[in-house]
This record gives sequence, C-alpha cells and structure tokens, in this order.
Amino acid sequence: MVIGGGFGGLRVARRLARRRDVEVTLIDRANHHLFQPLLYQVSTGILAGGQIAPPLRDLFVGRENVRVLLAEVESIDVEARTISAESASDIVLPYDTLVLAAGAGDSYFGHDEWERDAPGMKSLDDAYRIRTRILNAFEQAEALGPGAERDAYLTFVIVGAGPTGVELAGQLAYLSRHTLAGHYRSIRSEDARIVLLDAAPSVLPSFRERLRRKATTELERVGIELVMATTATGVGPHGIDTTGPEGVGRIESHTVLWAAGVAASPLAAQLAQATGASLDRAGRIAVAPDLTLPGHPEIFALGDTIALDDIPGVAQAALQEGHYVANVIARRLDQKQPPAPFHYRDKGSMAIVGRSWAVADVRGFQVAGRVAWVIWAVVHIAFLVGWQSRFEIIRRWFWEFLTEHRNERLISAVSLLPDELARSELESWRRRISDR
Amino acid sequence: MVIGGGFGGLRVARRLARRRDVEVTLIDRANHHLFQPLLYQVSTGILAGGQIAPPLRDLFVGRENVRVLLAEVESIDVEARTISAESASDIVLPYDTLVLAAGAGDSYFGHDEWERDAPGMKSLDDAYRIRTRILNAFEQAEALGPGAERDAYLTFVIVGAGPTGVELAGQLAYLSRHTLAGHYRSIRSEDARIVLLDAAPSVLPSFRERLRRKATTELERVGIELVMATTATGVGPHGIDTTGPEGVGRIESHTVLWAAGVAASPLAAQLAQATGASLDRAGRIAVAPDLTLPGHPEIFALGDTIALDDIPGVAQAALQEGHYVANVIARRLDQKQPPAPFHYRDKGSMAIVGRSWAVADVRGFQVAGRVAWVIWAVVHIAFLVGWQSRFEIIRRWFWEFLTEHRNERLISAVSLLPDELARSELESWRRRISDR
Repeated sequence: MVIGGGFGGLRVARRLARRRDVEVTLIDRANHHLFQPLLYQVSTGILAGGQIAPPLRDLFVGRENVRVLLAEVESIDVEARTISAESASDIVLPYDTLVLAAGAGDSYFGHDEWERDAPGMKSLDDAYRIRTRILNAFEQAEALGPGAERDAYLTFVIVGAGPTGVELAGQLAYLSRHTLAGHYRSIRSEDARIVLLDAAPSVLPSFRERLRRKATTELERVGIELVMATTATGVGPHGIDTTGPEGVGRIESHTVLWAAGVAASPLAAQLAQATGASLDRAGRIAVAPDLTLPGHPEIFALGDTIALDDIPGVAQAALQEGHYVANVIARRLDQKQPPAPFHYRDKGSMAIVGRSWAVADVRGFQVAGRVAWVIWAVVHIAFLVGWQSRFEIIRRWFWEFLTEHRNERLISAVSLLPDELARSELESWRRRISDR
Repeated sequence: MVIGGGFGGLRVARRLARRRDVEVTLIDRANHHLFQPLLYQVSTGILAGGQIAPPLRDLFVGRENVRVLLAEVESIDVEARTISAESASDIVLPYDTLVLAAGAGDSYFGHDEWERDAPGMKSLDDAYRIRTRILNAFEQAEALGPGAERDAYLTFVIVGAGPTGVELAGQLAYLSRHTLAGHYRSIRSEDARIVLLDAAPSVLPSFRERLRRKATTELERVGIELVMATTATGVGPHGIDTTGPEGVGRIESHTVLWAAGVAASPLAAQLAQATGASLDRAGRIAVAPDLTLPGHPEIFALGDTIALDDIPGVAQAALQEGHYVANVIARRLDQKQPPAPFHYRDKGSMAIVGRSWAVADVRGFQVAGRVAWVIWAVVHIAFLVGWQSRFEIIRRWFWEFLTEHRNERLISAVSLLPDELARSELESWRRRISDR
C-alpha cells in the first residue's frame, strides 16, 4: 500500500509493479502524478496542466497487480494494519506493508488564515489559482483609473526566495515586461512592481555564496525588488505587513503569493503519535536509517514526510528513497539480507532565475546563466514522464523563446475559489449523493 | 462598444479595428475568445483549454484604437447611451454605437435548479466541470463494490441530441470503450452505459432524414442508448426522471449532462424592454433586417441574442452577422448608403458523431462517415484563431488517432464547484478588496 503518487511513491509503485508476487495499491487524492518542478510554468501561462500531470492510471495499464485509487486517506490504524480513506464512500483497506509518501503542503507558520490571500503552489489547482490571480490583477488594473487601488493591483509580492519563489518572480517579471507588453491601454504591464521577500539574508539560501550573488544580480537586472531579512507579520486582501532591518513596513498589494515554507502531510504526525516516532517543526517524522518507523518494520516513510539527516526536500531525494524502499521490500520478499542503510547521493541543485537563465551547482561545479539553463532544461525534460509531454513542452518552450507568446492565459472564476471551499463543497456533494 | 468576444462580437471588433477613425471597446466577462465548436474536446480530455481559447487581448496587440475590458455588463441605459459593468469596481461607459453580441447560456426550461446536477457546456469552466465529473465518476465506481450505487456512477445521461449532445455522447463512448480500457481493476470502463435523450423523435433534428438515420445507426453501433421523444421531468443527484412514449421512467445516474436548450443573454431581455422590441421564448430579441433595434439605429444585436427569420444559432451565422454589422457601421462613417438587408448564406452544417465519423450537409450534398469527418476537421482547423493552436491541435488529433491516448485528464476538486458558488465567492472577494 503506497500513499501518494508523487516522485517517491510513484517510484516505489513502479518498481514493485514489475514483480508478479506483489499486490500494489497506490492511493492518491489526485488522479495524476504532478511534475512539480514545472508547476510554476503552469502558473505563468506557458504550459497546460495535462502536459506535466499524467494520469496515474496511465502508468499502470497492463499491470494487473497494481490498483490505483483516487481517495483521500483520513487515518492509519497501525495496530489493525488498515487505512481509512474517503472517496464516494468511506473505505477501509488492509495492508501488509505501508509506504507513506504523502508529501507536504504549504506552511504559514501558524497563520493558516493567510492562505486565502496568499495562495501557495503545491497542486495544479493552486497553479491555476495563481495564474488567474496574476492575470486578473492586470485586468482589474486596466479597468481602474490611476491611484492607490490600481497600484495595489500592479504590485505582486512573493513571500519566500527559495527556488520556487525565485522561479515565480522571474517568470512574473518576464510575463509583465515582455509577454503582456502592449496588451493594455490604460496601464503599462511593464511597470508592474514585483517584490520578492524572505526572512533569510539572501535569495536561494540553500545555494552557495557565489551563485546566490549571481542570482541576486540577475533578479535585480530584470527589475525585481528584493526585500531580504524581512518577515511577514500579516497578510490580508490589501497587502502584507512586514518587519525587517528597517523596522515595520507594509506593501499594498492584491496579489501576494506564498512560497515560504512546507509542512509535511498531517498523516506523518498521525504515524508519529501511533508509533512514538518524533516529529520536527515542519511536521516531518523521524525515520530509521532504512526509512522504516521505530518498532514498525512494515511501515516506511519517505520524501517530504520525513526528516533524516539533512536530506533536502527535493525530487531527487524522494526518487532515491523510493528506489531504496522498493529494494528493501523486494529483498524481504526474496528472503535476502536487508540492504545497507539509505545513503543520499546529492546530484546537485539547480534553480531557474529568469527566462533562459539559471544557476546550477553540480558536484561542486558552479554555473550561472544560459549554460546552466540548458542543463536545467535537459535534466527536467529527461525526468518528465511521457514522450508526448516531452515533445509538446520542448515545442512550447521553443515557441515561447521565439515569440514571447504564451497560450495558456485563461482567467477562470472557478479557479479563484479557495481550496477550503472546494473541499467543503465536495463533501456536501458526496453527502447529497450518498443520502437517499 | 461591443459586448461579447464570441464569434460575432470578435468579428465586428476585428473589422472595425482596421479603421483609425473608430474607437472600439470590446467588453467580455471572460478574458478569452472561445472556439466553442471544439469545447467538447476539452470536456473529454483531448485538448487543453488554452488551445481553443486565445486571450482576447492577443488579437488586438498593436491596435491602439481597440480597448479590451474584462468585466460583466450589468445593464444598458439606452437613453443615456451608457452601459454599467462590474469588474474591480463598478464602471459606467458611454457609447455612440452598441453591438450586443453576448451570446446565450443554457436553458433549463424553467428548472434552473437542475443546473447543479446537470451542468451544461458553454464556457471553459463548464468544460472542466464536465471533464472532472466524467472522470471522477469512473474513479468513484472503481472505489465502490458492485451494486446500484456503482451502476449509477457508470451511467451517463446526456440530455439533448443536437450536435453538442451527439458529440459529447460519441466522445464519451470512445473514452470509455477505448481510452480508459484496461485502466481499472474492479470495473470495466467499457461497460459504461451512455444514454442520449431528447424530446425530438430523432437525433440531430436540424439535419435531413438521411443523415439523421445514418447518425442513429452509428451512435447505436458504438453502444449509445438512444431514448428519443422523451422529456426530462426531474433532475437530481441520483438521476433523471423522464416521460416518453412508454410512460414515466427513471434513469439512475450520478452524471447527467445538459445539452438541451439555449437561452439568450439576459441583456437581450433588458434591451427588449427598453426599446419595445419583442422577445421570443428563448429570450432572443427581434431585430430589424439591418440587425438594429426598432427606433435605435445605434444599437445592433447579433448571434445567439437575436431571433431573425429562421437563422440558426451557429458560429457561421454570428460571423456573417458580425461582418454585416461592421459593414453598416463603416458605411455610416463614410456617409455611404446603408447596405442591403442582412441575408444569411447557409454554408451547410456538420456534426461529429464518433471518432473520425461525422455527418455533413454542404449545399445539398450529404456525406456521412470518414469523408465528412475530414471535411469537418479541415473547416474547424481553418476557422481556429492562431497558428500555434492549429499546429498543436492537429498534432494532438494525430496522436490520439494513433494511440487512443488522451493527455488532458485532470480531475480538479475546484472545477467541480458550481458556477453560482464561484460567482458569489468572486463577489465577496471583490467586496473584501474594495472595503477598507
């Protein structure tokens, strides 16, 4: 039983699928695997959702021993070895071995009420929401006369200057300065103010000094305001309150986007309580070196749900962990010795900063600029699932490169709705169907 | 001032845009033109929304005399010659000449409460909603055990057997019999029951006898149940009540889709009241032969908002009317004689029935099958806006033809939400921003 079809969970399921003596159930609340590293390109109108999100079922056609279920796991009973999940009806499923790969959501550091005015970017719905907010802000500004209200629509604040925040800011700058240039009559989209804010003293804090400095220069060159060493103290529909080295501040903006922190799936906390494992501040569970939970060799956890050494919460870590977990399970079935403890091999890190401009740190080899961007593009295309998507994405990048044109620029009223509303409505819809 | 960026309104705006002595404002509640004839391909996972919906602004870059506004027109004051619209704030805009091209929505024949359980397909949000409902139904069925509940998830009812209903039914049949085959473990998607229902005695009532008969045979061949001469008398979350030649009936289904009737934009009724023009049952306004309103030569109406002779509510009629209206306006400005009254030239009609199977009636020349499908495909590609989209759509069709694979199969909780909720939430969001 694998909970979560992200990088880690999918890797476990795909590797175990090859064995006829294993029955795999892959359960996810979305019907697709999401290639998160390109999600920001959906938010900014370059790619369509389907291009980075193959349906999970497609990946297991012909694998009769794999069952994919669309359902939200509510709880895990480690004594009875069952999980309870919600879909059309409540279901309870038994497991022999459990792999928790449920990932992480956004963390608002105790201020969940900010989510409504500062949406994060974890799912496709999130990406559509951000896309609609960004494009809608320009539209609203166009309809208004000059003044503070219009300025607030033309001000975009991105909280969090890690790779996601930097990518979003860079794409937003390009969108406003190039793609949308000449589209409006009463505003100039080029004049949009884009603010990137972080509590850390520099952008891309996980990168080394030299690349951080280069990224800073590039971000400033394309006209992004960097507000570092500054914390958000309040977020509302009109803007954000901050406190930083220059004291208390405020930025008036109707579009605040959140890329600041992650919190592991609440299932991690549930498992920690049930098994006595410890939990860190981000809600991640401490696992043994073989990625199992203490006293429960039948339960594995991986990816963004775990805290192990200083392994970062990136796709390559989840992939390696998934590979390892599948290996442990396979060796158990073959009654072989367990493998050596999990060892993370850092293959380097990359972040895209502007259009065809990236920083990459590959085994100590530091590159910034076009070359890094090419490395970035090759690596991301290679890790994508599905040839059709690869082909289309390359074509779209090429087209966008030539024409600055972006096709996927839909404003959808529905996608503006907050997730909480979607969930409560979904709940009531299910109740209507099950009440007879 | 043009209200609506559909086929008719866009044609007026594009033709007038060439004249430097005209200031055009194009106002629409969506930020994109929608190529409605391919909308059903978004609903059924073949195309991405952006591929059939170019942003309206893109079409007027460099045309400084055209202003595009994203706003919903609330009312028209024909005496003061102003319109009131709602966007970030309430705006009032004056006009010299007004073109009402606001199109039509779904008509539930006095039962608007059915909309929630039987969504129609007019906008991209609608298409995503239908896509999510269809795919979600298969997922819920997979999670359930055998029984009536599961059967209701595997039963799809399409109300209305005009071109839209027939297209949807055909694609749904193909999706379940081919694209999704082998994807599930506890159900066979091939067994899905697809019911096409209409009050008329035959499918495609606007087509001639011979093509209707051929279409009927093809629909039955791919396993669609045709329930003709039957009216919906009730729609709820569990199914639909009907009355037909065999008396009262009921079909248990969690997925009822509406393709039965259209109602003109409420702005048509407003204009009718203000000008004394008459209104037909579908809420369409009666216009003079030059497409103006009685006593108001400065107000034109066209497309799905008008009733004139027996001109059908199709894209080619709206395009011809848009062309004509732009011509009348241009001749007035040039102080030339008005042109002859509008004359509709029927270039034929087509409907796609199955995968690569269509019926076409082109100037008396009747074709059914593959050849008609090729004609259909060529005509639709030719009328699409944008080379990039043409290229991508041809490629996707080709790919789908070879592999039966469909990429755009995302289930999104947010897109399940009904439009009314989206609108009320949008309203409250705007209020939050404007309340200070």
